[in-house]
Amino acid sequence: MNGFHFEVLGRDGAARTGLVHTAHGSIRTPAFMPVGTAATVKAMLPQSVRETGADVLLGNTYHLMLRPGAERIARLGGLHKFMDWPGPILTDSGGFQVMSLSDLRKITEEGVRFRSHIDGHEEFLSPERAMEIQRLLGSDIQMVFDECPSLPATHGTIEKSVALSMRWAGRSRAAFVRQTELEREGRACFGIVQGGTFADLRLRSAEALQEIGFEGYAIGGLAVGEPQSAMFETLEATVPHLPPEKPRYLMGVGKPDDIVGAVMRGIDMFDCVLPTRSGRNGQAFTFEGALNLKNARFADDEAPLDPACPCPACRQFSRAYLHHVVKSGEIIAAMLLSWHNLTHYQRLVESLRQAIAGARLDAWIATYRDEFPNAETQISG
Amino acid sequence: MNGFHFEVLGRDGAARTGLVHTAHGSIRTPAFMPVGTAATVKAMLPQSVRETGADVLLGNTYHLMLRPGAERIARLGGLHKFMDWPGPILTDSGGFQVMSLSDLRKITEEGVRFRSHIDGHEEFLSPERAMEIQRLLGSDIQMVFDECPSLPATHGTIEKSVALSMRWAGRSRAAFVRQTELEREGRACFGIVQGGTFADLRLRSAEALQEIGFEGYAIGGLAVGEPQSAMFETLEATVPHLPPEKPRYLMGVGKPDDIVGAVMRGIDMFDCVLPTRSGRNGQAFTFEGALNLKNARFADDEAPLDPACPCPACRQFSRAYLHHVVKSGEIIAAMLLSWHNLTHYQRLVESLRQAIAGARLDAWIATYRDEFPNAETQISG
Repeated sequence: MNGFHFEVLGRDGAARTGLVHTAHGSIRTPAFMPVGTAATVKAMLPQSVRETGADVLLGNTYHLMLRPGAERIARLGGLHKFMDWPGPILTDSGGFQVMSLSDLRKITEEGVRFRSHIDGHEEFLSPERAMEIQRLLGSDIQMVFDECPSLPATHGTIEKSVALSMRWAGRSRAAFVRQTELEREGRACFGIVQGGTFADLRLRSAEALQEIGFEGYAIGGLAVGEPQSAMFETLEATVPHLPPEKPRYLMGVGKPDDIVGAVMRGIDMFDCVLPTRSGRNGQAFTFEGALNLKNARFADDEAPLDPACPCPACRQFSRAYLHHVVKSGEIIAAMLLSWHNLTHYQRLVESLRQAIAGARLDAWIATYRDEFPNAETQISG
Repeated sequence: MNGFHFEVLGRDGAARTGLVHTAHGSIRTPAFMPVGTAATVKAMLPQSVRETGADVLLGNTYHLMLRPGAERIARLGGLHKFMDWPGPILTDSGGFQVMSLSDLRKITEEGVRFRSHIDGHEEFLSPERAMEIQRLLGSDIQMVFDECPSLPATHGTIEKSVALSMRWAGRSRAAFVRQTELEREGRACFGIVQGGTFADLRLRSAEALQEIGFEGYAIGGLAVGEPQSAMFETLEATVPHLPPEKPRYLMGVGKPDDIVGAVMRGIDMFDCVLPTRSGRNGQAFTFEGALNLKNARFADDEAPLDPACPCPACRQFSRAYLHHVVKSGEIIAAMLLSWHNLTHYQRLVESLRQAIAGARLDAWIATYRDEFPNAETQISG
């Protein structure tokens, strides 16, 4: 079967484990997607990203449309070939970045006019153009173009924004359907539930998207500064209203404990820049909490970062070495700590997949809490 | 046989090919040594450096004594273990860096007092301390501590400097001999011929060093801004006065054509930051000349950097991709172009080794000139 589909292999409470099948291979869920903003997962070669256990990458429409350009990538054979990633690629729609990165932007019913952060030239994104760009990139999972209001915002503001996003979701889907008539075998388009932290608006958004119909459903507009408890409450108010047979993707999340809590609430897919960005800043995630390798206490520490981790940073080097290269600003520090953090995230989701498959998620979480009571990656369940 | 020794396997004119045997393995000559200044070859993992074909790395006494400190590296098991490089390591003595990097320095007969460029604290290097640091690092090939006057300089200035360097060479050797009585099986200490571009001073320096006696002889104080022709003339005035059974190392050299010209004049070993530094600046060495990947003409170029090169940059990516990541300032650009340039340098010395072994160096050079007449890497033979 070539078509895009989601296969649920196991359930444990609200949590599920399964496989998302795409034109470029399958994605084990719960899945963590490393972010390849500008056609590279920063400080990593693609084969190294694969070695961490990642099945799928995220690419950014906003960054790629500005540089090197979607039409150029299409001429060069598509994003998979361009960045040498043969596996599945999910692309965002550019909506979030346009709203958050672009100073000069004007939102109308038609779309968003904005200026490039690179050279200031004027650009335009609409639902139709966002889907066209994602098609040109060769994306396996395209995201609808939506508006992302900044929080906190009033109920009225979010209500208007959701209404616009749902009209744009309809136009995005229509554009995607026109593509699929030509060439989109095995490709998918996901809708994005919006509504801030208002349960009634999340419900309305979830229903509106299902009337349109998508291959998967994302939850957007979270992890933008609200407390973790508000994020989890919003998931609890939203996930039960999404179709159980379709994958669910929590966008831009998050810290390890955010991921664990969201998996417990029925989320299947995640993406976040945290492991790579933290790696470039000298921070390492471990099951005992996050370590700041800049700290002088590591200067003479012969131990590996995490003796159980199979990444090169842990297998080949001491904490003392990592401290040294972080303090010295050496590129290898970003390389090793990005590799480690991505490996840590993949070990986390693999462990969750196995716990769900064995219907022992509660025990997994209890063990985690007992063994690592002071972990910064503590689970707020 | 565990002892350090040099085995000449073939000769072609003044050029030789052979093996330098050390406690950590053998070095094929002519050899290019990547520079691992601060216990890392910048933007490369050690296994990747090995994959380029490198047998030996250079480590910098000056940088390592300041951070993380020689005693610390010794406590952590030595530089090989610290940076996970199981092969041979050659260390410089810190002399060149102290002279060129340190603003506040005072040279006396005893040694050099200077301030750290990192935090300004006062440090002292002498022949004895330089050899002690190299012992603490666990170096396979230690270099004598010498003075490196900046060029141009008068005959009188260089003459005084050479005299001081030769007294320091004697003290360096004495310190090394005291070490070897304890624990230095298979380790070597090289003398450094100084004398600027003055043939009489180079001769005097070469003779003074041989009276002391070393396992190998380096030529220092070149590639500091003088024309290539002056460097080659100095080699021609120096190499014939060095013992043919010992390896010869031209320090800090150079561009590909510098290396070819020096091999023709009897040099066996080289080190230079050029391949890695150029890589971080978006420049790629090829047998058709150096390419600046920032150039817009590569934006749509589907071709690999060099179709004959086995490195990941050439095997996996297009020039268009490399242009994109260079322009975007992505870390992967430094990683890929450093890997490529180091591979290019290793392919160059491997090709020279084979040409010398087959006694066809003249034909090799003629072919090179015919095929790539406009190469920026043109040979000035």
